[in-house]
Amino acid sequence: MSEAEVRAAYERIRPYVIHTPLERSRTLSRMLGADIRLKCENLQRTGSFKVRGALSRLLGMSAAERRRGVVAASAGNHAQGVAYAASIAGAKATIVMPESAAIAKIEATRGYGAAVVLAGADYAAAFHHAAALARRRRATLVHAFDDDAVIAGQGTVGLEIVEDFPDVEIIVVPVGGGGLAAGILAAVAARVRVIGAQSARASTLRPSLRAGRRIASPPSPTLADGLATSGIGARAWRLLRWRLRRAAIVGEAEIAGAILLLLERTKLVVEGAGATALAACLGPLRRTIAGRRVVVVLSGGNIDVNVLDRILNLGLAEQGRVFRFATVLSDRPGALSALSAVVAAAGANIKTIHHDRGRVGLGVLETLVTVELETRGPRHVPEIVRRLRARGYRVIADD
Amino acid sequence: MSEAEVRAAYERIRPYVIHTPLERSRTLSRMLGADIRLKCENLQRTGSFKVRGALSRLLGMSAAERRRGVVAASAGNHAQGVAYAASIAGAKATIVMPESAAIAKIEATRGYGAAVVLAGADYAAAFHHAAALARRRRATLVHAFDDDAVIAGQGTVGLEIVEDFPDVEIIVVPVGGGGLAAGILAAVAARVRVIGAQSARASTLRPSLRAGRRIASPPSPTLADGLATSGIGARAWRLLRWRLRRAAIVGEAEIAGAILLLLERTKLVVEGAGATALAACLGPLRRTIAGRRVVVVLSGGNIDVNVLDRILNLGLAEQGRVFRFATVLSDRPGALSALSAVVAAAGANIKTIHHDRGRVGLGVLETLVTVELETRGPRHVPEIVRRLRARGYRVIADD
Repeated sequence: MSEAEVRAAYERIRPYVIHTPLERSRTLSRMLGADIRLKCENLQRTGSFKVRGALSRLLGMSAAERRRGVVAASAGNHAQGVAYAASIAGAKATIVMPESAAIAKIEATRGYGAAVVLAGADYAAAFHHAAALARRRRATLVHAFDDDAVIAGQGTVGLEIVEDFPDVEIIVVPVGGGGLAAGILAAVAARVRVIGAQSARASTLRPSLRAGRRIASPPSPTLADGLATSGIGARAWRLLRWRLRRAAIVGEAEIAGAILLLLERTKLVVEGAGATALAACLGPLRRTIAGRRVVVVLSGGNIDVNVLDRILNLGLAEQGRVFRFATVLSDRPGALSALSAVVAAAGANIKTIHHDRGRVGLGVLETLVTVELETRGPRHVPEIVRRLRARGYRVIADD
Repeated sequence: MSEAEVRAAYERIRPYVIHTPLERSRTLSRMLGADIRLKCENLQRTGSFKVRGALSRLLGMSAAERRRGVVAASAGNHAQGVAYAASIAGAKATIVMPESAAIAKIEATRGYGAAVVLAGADYAAAFHHAAALARRRRATLVHAFDDDAVIAGQGTVGLEIVEDFPDVEIIVVPVGGGGLAAGILAAVAARVRVIGAQSARASTLRPSLRAGRRIASPPSPTLADGLATSGIGARAWRLLRWRLRRAAIVGEAEIAGAILLLLERTKLVVEGAGATALAACLGPLRRTIAGRRVVVVLSGGNIDVNVLDRILNLGLAEQGRVFRFATVLSDRPGALSALSAVVAAAGANIKTIHHDRGRVGLGVLETLVTVELETRGPRHVPEIVRRLRARGYRVIADD
């Protein structure tokens, strides 16, 4: 894989992709003592960089190949990327998704005009099904990362980075199958350091770099579900093994924290995989990047709203902006409204409240009430507690 | 106010603001049958367009004025805009915020180096305090919208829009005090239609346009808190009364829906005021914009995470992706775990579960359980209900 191949891919796909913004973040630059710019592939068509590789592959196919169609297996961004690319290339696309795929992602894939087949309990089973289908139909199977045309397409992210920020010193990129990292390595000069970021629950990169050969191991469920492969692809490995400088590993709490930080401070919605490179900068790479000109690749933004909701709640509780406690009320009319009045006077909002009369250890005329409050922040919590206690309430904090 | 004044303001502020992206949205364009581009002022420094007006005002001040400092009243984006602008202009800034201001916004304002004074129960009281403070110190009071230099600064949003999209036909812009709309009107050619969008809970624009004079009325609490003024400013009114084409009014549910749509489909975090123009396009302006080249101004992204959390939950419930129901269990060991197993087999996740032994009308050995599930979407719900009923559970839906 050479820079020329990436440039050729860029010529093909340029009319159909967004040259995504490279935003300098003042907040993150200050927090990290570095010049931090975010490559916003979450704002790319279909919500992730995957569409670049898919377009590169499909637009390189002959008219006869396009007529026979394409098949791909994916539960996520590759599905939408291939579906969109097929609509541009005038090819019929069939996407095999695992039976557990989120309905929102199935709908999005169909929205680009692809046929969706649900088959298999997991990605491996869906891939097996897709391969058989492609053979039967003499259609082209489009692999998500182990394909030179796909890697060249992902490398166009690197071309845009150096075009917009020629002085970049370090690029931090999330790694699943390694296609994006390999493509970027092919596209940028050798003096630019490329560092891979992985979830601890799908971290084959570091053992592979240490062993000097690809180590496979099945991933565990992770917020960075887009990175959950069983290992680096063979084609990507040819570039990564010699030129990738380092593998940085982050945990689930770090990924969740990075998602919340991006949401609150940069106003960007980023999925778990997309936030992994920033999580690495905030954690294991902090000293490596200090004082440097750094690009953090936000690879995608397709996060499930249910997942985002859980992350917000976690983050709010950690920041002291939600306060949960229990108290005991006498079981007579007006007791709950009196409690609510004290909370309101303290400037807090009740999010949820639960009565439980049957709790063991309480008197017959007593009720345990658990309350969840929105607060104005951590310094507000002791004031709320003080006011409640001043009015005679026991406050049993929940933690 | 003339285009030349806006251009002069742009020359002053250009080095310190982001030329924000104007992103074409395929999804919204398809939904609305129009060419829809989003002006992303949520990605602006300090998270909103307000910084443009503040910089225009402060960078136009003399060295002597800067030494005496500036004072402003705001609970939100103007506070951060003035604080940031003062740090650029080398002026001391004092921001008066109402006592109820969110701690996150106080911290952000202090983060730009401003002194924060908490005074007054609401914005009007804080403004009164700020005006007195400015007089006492001989400092400059920077109004959030009723100021020509501020309006000229906000108008630079319009210059960027026509630079990036010369063929624009309609610009839809949220209106509070009217500074942004007035500035944009001054900046763009008369052939471009500018339409104002307001929350129904702070909607003085339509009655004012009808009466031909400014009508003031106190705002009610709204998700679009950045638009909650008691009326249009006198200086903005001079432009709006002759040149604004229309006022579109939207409700709270429409604003919440627009926030969720932007989050899920365009990966952008937008506050209530910032989503109001899109809500208007999806509602009252749908026929007006059909087939047109439209810019929707996303004015800011500073939404409280607690508020965002509530909006996500509302949206999830509306989309059938959260399902709440109650059922009755016999009060014996293992009953809850059996219920959980049925739910898991149906492919749903339990979000919350509550036992209530004391409910009137239940047998002594029965417990009412209320359950909140994450589903894969609306078509998943009947399947879950069917499986529960097949195993003998009563399912009492909550709505």
